[in-house]
Amino acid sequence: MTNFAPSLTSAHASFLSDLFPGDGCVLSSEGRAAFSADSSRVHAMPWAVVRPEGRAQVEELLRWADAERVPVYPRARGTGQAGNVVPVHGGVVVSLLRMNRILDVSADDFVAVLEPGVVTADLQAACAAEGLFYPPDPASVKISTVGGNISTCAGGLRAVKYGVTRDWVLGVEAVLPGGRVLRCGGRSHKDVVGLDLTRLFVGAGGKLGLLTELTVKLVPLPEASASILVGFADLESCMEGARAVFRAGLLPAACEFMDEITLGAVRRIDDIPLADDARAALLFMVDGTEGGVRAETDRLRAAIEPLKPVSVEVGTGEAEEAVWTVRRRVSPATYQLAPDKVAEDIAVPRSRVGEAVERSHAIGREHGLTVLCYGHLGDGNLHVSIMHDASVEDQVERAHRAKEALFRLAIELGGTISGEHGTGLTKAEFVPEQLGAEAIELMDAVKKNFDPNGIMNPGKAW
Amino acid sequence: MTNFAPSLTSAHASFLSDLFPGDGCVLSSEGRAAFSADSSRVHAMPWAVVRPEGRAQVEELLRWADAERVPVYPRARGTGQAGNVVPVHGGVVVSLLRMNRILDVSADDFVAVLEPGVVTADLQAACAAEGLFYPPDPASVKISTVGGNISTCAGGLRAVKYGVTRDWVLGVEAVLPGGRVLRCGGRSHKDVVGLDLTRLFVGAGGKLGLLTELTVKLVPLPEASASILVGFADLESCMEGARAVFRAGLLPAACEFMDEITLGAVRRIDDIPLADDARAALLFMVDGTEGGVRAETDRLRAAIEPLKPVSVEVGTGEAEEAVWTVRRRVSPATYQLAPDKVAEDIAVPRSRVGEAVERSHAIGREHGLTVLCYGHLGDGNLHVSIMHDASVEDQVERAHRAKEALFRLAIELGGTISGEHGTGLTKAEFVPEQLGAEAIELMDAVKKNFDPNGIMNPGKAW
Repeated sequence: MTNFAPSLTSAHASFLSDLFPGDGCVLSSEGRAAFSADSSRVHAMPWAVVRPEGRAQVEELLRWADAERVPVYPRARGTGQAGNVVPVHGGVVVSLLRMNRILDVSADDFVAVLEPGVVTADLQAACAAEGLFYPPDPASVKISTVGGNISTCAGGLRAVKYGVTRDWVLGVEAVLPGGRVLRCGGRSHKDVVGLDLTRLFVGAGGKLGLLTELTVKLVPLPEASASILVGFADLESCMEGARAVFRAGLLPAACEFMDEITLGAVRRIDDIPLADDARAALLFMVDGTEGGVRAETDRLRAAIEPLKPVSVEVGTGEAEEAVWTVRRRVSPATYQLAPDKVAEDIAVPRSRVGEAVERSHAIGREHGLTVLCYGHLGDGNLHVSIMHDASVEDQVERAHRAKEALFRLAIELGGTISGEHGTGLTKAEFVPEQLGAEAIELMDAVKKNFDPNGIMNPGKAW
Repeated sequence: MTNFAPSLTSAHASFLSDLFPGDGCVLSSEGRAAFSADSSRVHAMPWAVVRPEGRAQVEELLRWADAERVPVYPRARGTGQAGNVVPVHGGVVVSLLRMNRILDVSADDFVAVLEPGVVTADLQAACAAEGLFYPPDPASVKISTVGGNISTCAGGLRAVKYGVTRDWVLGVEAVLPGGRVLRCGGRSHKDVVGLDLTRLFVGAGGKLGLLTELTVKLVPLPEASASILVGFADLESCMEGARAVFRAGLLPAACEFMDEITLGAVRRIDDIPLADDARAALLFMVDGTEGGVRAETDRLRAAIEPLKPVSVEVGTGEAEEAVWTVRRRVSPATYQLAPDKVAEDIAVPRSRVGEAVERSHAIGREHGLTVLCYGHLGDGNLHVSIMHDASVEDQVERAHRAKEALFRLAIELGGTISGEHGTGLTKAEFVPEQLGAEAIELMDAVKKNFDPNGIMNPGKAW
């Protein structure tokens, strides 16, 4: 463990103020407080916050921070759920939001080159204007950044067809502690020269270096899509329905699941286009050419017909968004059930999702709490919300024990304790059970090559 | 640099014979000679060859080899073009061909689990029997193995739509020097726990450890495909034709290119369904549903029409293979031009392919040699063959200088000296120019974490 500088000296503060003039450096406690937490609501105060506008400042910063042993915490919009950007050792938070230029969107090379602080939806809009598509779509797509998505290997709804963020990164430029600049990969869609350091940065959570430029792969924008909301009488026929769709040779862009408890919560706040007796639901999206979408919609309906769905609602064109209401309202609706939640994102092999849902419900019963499941069935990534009331004695403790049981379940089913949120602080204690000592030792050793003094995002789990 | 054992002692030979009984251990010089080279035709004799049948033997072997400082060279079918499996420091060649069981093909999880020695086409056949598809398709697909494809991050024809081998690997089990067993990733399609060591093994060329089990991602088998061979009057309209197809929102499964010299060579040995005045050709494949394939074929024809192609041949069903003859015959046909070739596989951003072809031809003229270009235009991966006659004075030297010029060109155009073959021995001297000292130093350091004594595939470039 590095001996970090114990606090920010006045010499440090002068250095930072000089390097980041004006409001590029934030030293006031109100200013710093805004950078103390992420969506996990875990927080810790940084000593200072800086806002670089280009790579040169980042190089200078990491040269200084490495020499002075000052912890460095990169962050963007702070939409992460795992506390990964929280500055638990103080130090300097580096906000990348001013490095937000889209440098190139090339229809001829099918690549975009951009700075890390670009909001993902803004990149998608810039691509769409050229008839191009950057598929990764975490739920936070309208507020999170591509740099943050790459650092966490963000997943999302469309991963079942399009894969996760990792599958779209062609190259990165990073500044390492000491101010070294590393470039890996680039505009070539194929490149097998060297160890794959590019992908090592994807999901590394800012623990290897600071990303300053990104090159991502694009494809043509699908010309059409349709969404199909299907209600089932029970969980079993719902799981069989999903199985039937994949067995029919379909690869929908999205295949979302909602359990009975989730549907009940949404019904409390909204009318939804789903039969009242639906006790589980699937929400598919298919995309492609106009004709392809029609054909896939028909085939999908035919595939689920034998499972006797209680309702089928197809949304196309302007009406497509309406069938998504049920899914988009899940997160606020959960608070109809209890004022607090532990929101987890386990993933299991797709064939085990039904079992994972039933056993998650059982974990809830065992701990006297409501547990609901929804999420990305197509890739086995379940969002499990453990609802509780933190003001009632021992409910926080019971929610924590339920979370432990849930993680053991995910590992037992051949899955993972995090499909897309990452581990950061909130899952840190559970990581060793999944990865094992051998893997963690290697990850620590690899990190040391990039960051010998351990200044990059210290205090976080793999 | 490690001090390797200088040779195989009789104690070493006894150890290997005991661990690998019967023909599992090869010590005769005729027997070893068969494992001394790959498709690069560079060769070096190993001290011994062993053929493990399971992980336990591999653990024991790597415990011993690490302690004895015996170099270990993993190999499978030896189809590589870069000399990457050649045992330049002697040591033990480990043939993985007896670890060739397909352990699971799951239509419900969209994964396959297998040993590294499975031939890629055999995996694809096993998947197709379940209506599933493992897309990576290097030209060697019928003879190379999935383990070899993963170690080299093999590319192929379909990468333009489906990506490269890296994009299909979900997990690996590897044995590291010392006999440590490392498991990374698994059946979950999403998993963000830990640094991405899984993908670090993809393309690592056997330099980190020995792969013993692989988990790959599958998708539904496309139900139909069609191939379209298009002849153009000149290189410029050919490149514009490809551009028009991608601008029309199409993402063909394959988009192959052949230049005038390549077409001339093929015409010498075969009748091809292409107009005589075609001086450049594109070969597309589209795949998907029956209806989708028809629609995309029509759209593709419409997109290239303004470029006035001199011939368009569409192959579907039984007739599809016929339009591929021209492409499949390229490699043997090149020997119509000269008895020897330096076969390279640079990749450049797709918009630079036309320039790369013209300047490759110019390099040929400057060096008094015939240089032809063909390959995977869709992802910018060009196969450039430098034809020569090794028996004629100084032609080998001129071919080598032409190759140097070609690599400088690839780097200048923002590309790479290898899109899919890897670097191994044949491109070793050119790697530093592409990667730079910073990246190579990091790669060496990372390797040391896995293989502290440097016994895994020593003597090869990154």
